Order: sequence, then structure tokens, then C-alpha cells
Amino acid sequence: MNFLDKLDSASKRNKSKLCIGLDVDLSRIPKNFLSTDDPVFNFNRFIIEQTQDLVCSFKPNIAFYEALGIYGLEALIRTIEFIEKESQVPVILDAKRSDVGHTALAYAKACFEVYKADAVTVNPYMGHDSVVPFLNYRDKGIFVLCLTSNAGFKDFQTAGGREPLYISVAKHVKEWNHYGNCGVVVGATTKDGLEEIYKIVGDMPMLIPGIGAQGGDLANSVKFGGKRAIINASRSIIYAKDPSDEALKLRDQINQAAESSK
Amino acid sequence: MNFLDKLDSASKRNKSKLCIGLDVDLSRIPKNFLSTDDPVFNFNRFIIEQTQDLVCSFKPNIAFYEALGIYGLEALIRTIEFIEKESQVPVILDAKRSDVGHTALAYAKACFEVYKADAVTVNPYMGHDSVVPFLNYRDKGIFVLCLTSNAGFKDFQTAGGREPLYISVAKHVKEWNHYGNCGVVVGATTKDGLEEIYKIVGDMPMLIPGIGAQGGDLANSVKFGGKRAIINASRSIIYAKDPSDEALKLRDQINQAAESSK
Repeated sequence: MNFLDKLDSASKRNKSKLCIGLDVDLSRIPKNFLSTDDPVFNFNRFIIEQTQDLVCSFKPNIAFYEALGIYGLEALIRTIEFIEKESQVPVILDAKRSDVGHTALAYAKACFEVYKADAVTVNPYMGHDSVVPFLNYRDKGIFVLCLTSNAGFKDFQTAGGREPLYISVAKHVKEWNHYGNCGVVVGATTKDGLEEIYKIVGDMPMLIPGIGAQGGDLANSVKFGGKRAIINASRSIIYAKDPSDEALKLRDQINQAAESSK
Repeated sequence: MNFLDKLDSASKRNKSKLCIGLDVDLSRIPKNFLSTDDPVFNFNRFIIEQTQDLVCSFKPNIAFYEALGIYGLEALIRTIEFIEKESQVPVILDAKRSDVGHTALAYAKACFEVYKADAVTVNPYMGHDSVVPFLNYRDKGIFVLCLTSNAGFKDFQTAGGREPLYISVAKHVKEWNHYGNCGVVVGATTKDGLEEIYKIVGDMPMLIPGIGAQGGDLANSVKFGGKRAIINASRSIIYAKDPSDEALKLRDQINQAAESSK
């Protein structure tokens, strides 16, 4: 099944726009997992089993797995396999990859054929030919960084004279969407940005981090996230005392915000 | 030894500004390596042994290793270990990583503590806090993408009204250089860009891809690359019939161009 269908199906089945970020940090996971022979996978399996009927997608950020070396990447592969088998929820691999064409092709292979993600995040800095090899996987989802939720977004993304860089990126992503497989990443913390980008990309899937630990605006995110808003939360859920309860609360808050914004 | 000293030392010892890109592609390496039990490492070892007295650095691009899965990344780790033990030539891991602060820290750990590179390339799109965790490894080299050698550089890097994005990036990198461990990536194919960026960053290490297969301008690269110009060539050397001979020729061409530009 292609990414969009998988996303729509999970979103409908679970009545959810919530995406959970599987950002494993061994210093923060409950200690009982650390004594098992596969702590990263076992922790992820616990989170997935607790929340898979409450989400529209899971989003592991590959950085946390790479930092653990070969074991971490093996655990990432097992995690994505497990999600595919057990939950039919799509996996967005947060990788923010970017390189020149023939090298970007190698990254696309890694993301879709080695890690077997349904979708990936990419960085637009190097332009069109750095994104094409990803776009050519027509069944996959390609989320292009547009306006991010960290402090450094001001350095370049909102600069650029009459037309800020993030607006130019959003316009380019709209052009790159020949196969209907593009999406954008827009931080929940960037209030006006969400609306401006929505006006350009319409109902393209919009991955919105920054809710939860980073304190982004939920009502605004749901209002301008379009039909396929994907609201991500990571640490605030996976390190909660009761991840299932926390996910349920946030899913329902998102749905209430969506109702109110109609 | 820190990256800069290691770079200067190898450059002086080998009379070289040449960096060889270890971008392994199993469909292009000589067939005799494919029948060994560790083709990627064995091919790299061959290239390293043939060229280690002719270069100032080696630059594996991690994309090609990731595309081969767990085996590829294990072979990358073995390759970097081998270079460290056998040649004392610094390794620039071409990874173009970028993410929000706490995630960038995980990437920095992966690059410097798992893969054990001496330097890394990063993407500036997300701004200052996405680069800080790398900069905090004071002994390492941090090369920030500035103006790249691919066709897509026009989409965003040279846009931006009065001040193009790549000029703004170069100015920021100069500010970020508190510990003296920054560098920039500037494509050899971008003639005026090299001069403009040199005027901003001065003798900061400048990693210059685009010579060789991509046909960049060598004389210009050497002229405006500053004291620590690092001229990268990958496919044109590692897939040559005689990689050692090809590296020797290019090293000498670079040195002649440097003499002429004085």
C-alpha cells in the first residue's frame, strides 16, 4: 500500500492525527528495559503496543539510533519491521537527508530499501536534484523541511528579503509534487508560518512537530495543517508514566481542536 | 591530534591539497574485490594503500555505506579505523547532517564517537542550534555546506534578494567559528562564489568538491581556496585504471595551479 493510503487508513481507523516520535534515549527509558538483551527494540515495542490504535503514524528519528552504533541501527530495522507486521501504521523515518543527485539516490535506497520506511524527511538546501531520487519512489512520502520548530529557524528560513526562504521552499515543493507524494515539515511553534504555507501547499500532508515538549500551538496547527495534518509528539509521550494514557489524551485534544476549528 | 593539526601535517608531509572521496559503489569496483568476504573494506584498503602518501584527507560519503545496510556501515567503521592506524591522514565524514539541538547532538555522537571521523559536513538550513552540538567537539572539523556543486544550488542557495543565501551562510559560519574548528563546503563549479566566500571566511578550511567527474575549475579553486583548500575528487580517481597514478597527476596539477596563482 502506498504511503498516503496507509496514512489515511490508519488516521481513519484510529480517528487520529497523532504521530508518535520514537526517539529512543537509553538514559531516559525505564530501567527494566535496560536489563533485557534488546533494550531499544523492547522499549519501542512497548510504546508501539501501547499506542498503535491511537496514532496515524510513527516517526523514528534515525539520529538516536545512529548514535548507538550498529546495534542501534539493527534495532531500528527490527522496529520498523515490527510496526509493518503488527500495526499497519505507516512509518515516517525522520532523517533530514540531502546530497547531490547520485548520492541522494544512495540515501533514498537506504531509507526505503534498507530501513524500509514508508516516508522520509529531507532537507531542501541543495535544491531539486537532491530531492528527485526520493520523489522517484512514487509510493513513498517525501516530507521536505520548510519552517522548523527550533530556535535557529531565524538564521536562514525566515530571511531572504521580500520572499523568505521558507515561502520559496513551500512553492518549490508544490512544483515537485508531480507524483502527489510530497509533504512539508512545519513547526507548530511558527504561528503565521503554518497559515502561509497552508495557503501554498493546500492539503498536502503537513508534518507538524513542536507540540508537547516544545510548546507549540495546537489549535493553530490543526486549523492550518489541512486534511492531512500529522501532529508529532515524542518525548512528552514516550517518557510519560503511562504512554497510552498520554497518547489518548493528546489524540482527543487534537480531535477537539479540529472540531472547534471547523 | 585535532583535525586542523592532522590536516596540516598530512598536507605538508604529502605536499598535497588533494582529498579522495571514498564513495564505494559495488557496481563499479573491480570484480576481484566482489568475491572477497569484505568487498567494501578491501576496495577501500586498496585505494588507501595506493594513495595515502598523496593526499591531505580522505572523505567517505556515508550515503553509499548506508545504502548497503548494516554491512556497509560496519565496513565504514573498519575503513576509518584502518586510515587512523595506517596512514595518520584525517577523515572527513561527508554526512551533511542537520537536526534540532538535542537530535543534532545524537548525530554528532554518531559521527565522532561511533564512526570516529576527524571532521564532518553539516547542512545549515536549520540554523545555529543545529550546528552547535557539532561545534562543541572542539578538536573536530565542522564543514558547513555553503555553495554546492550540483545543479540544484540555484533553487535556494543563490536566491535571497540583496544577499544570496550562501553569502549569509558564509557570514554565519564565520560567527560560529569561536573554537576555530569551522570550515565551508564550496563547489569548484561555482566560479565567483569561491572568491566571494573566500573574502568572508579567509583561510578557514575550504572543502571543494566538483573537480574531476563534475568538471569544476581547478585554477580558480586553488586561487580562492585559501591556505587550507581541500580539493576533493572521488569517482575520477577511485574508479581509474591506476588510482595511484591518477591521484599523483591530480595532486601535481593542484600544486602547479597553486604555484601559478601566487
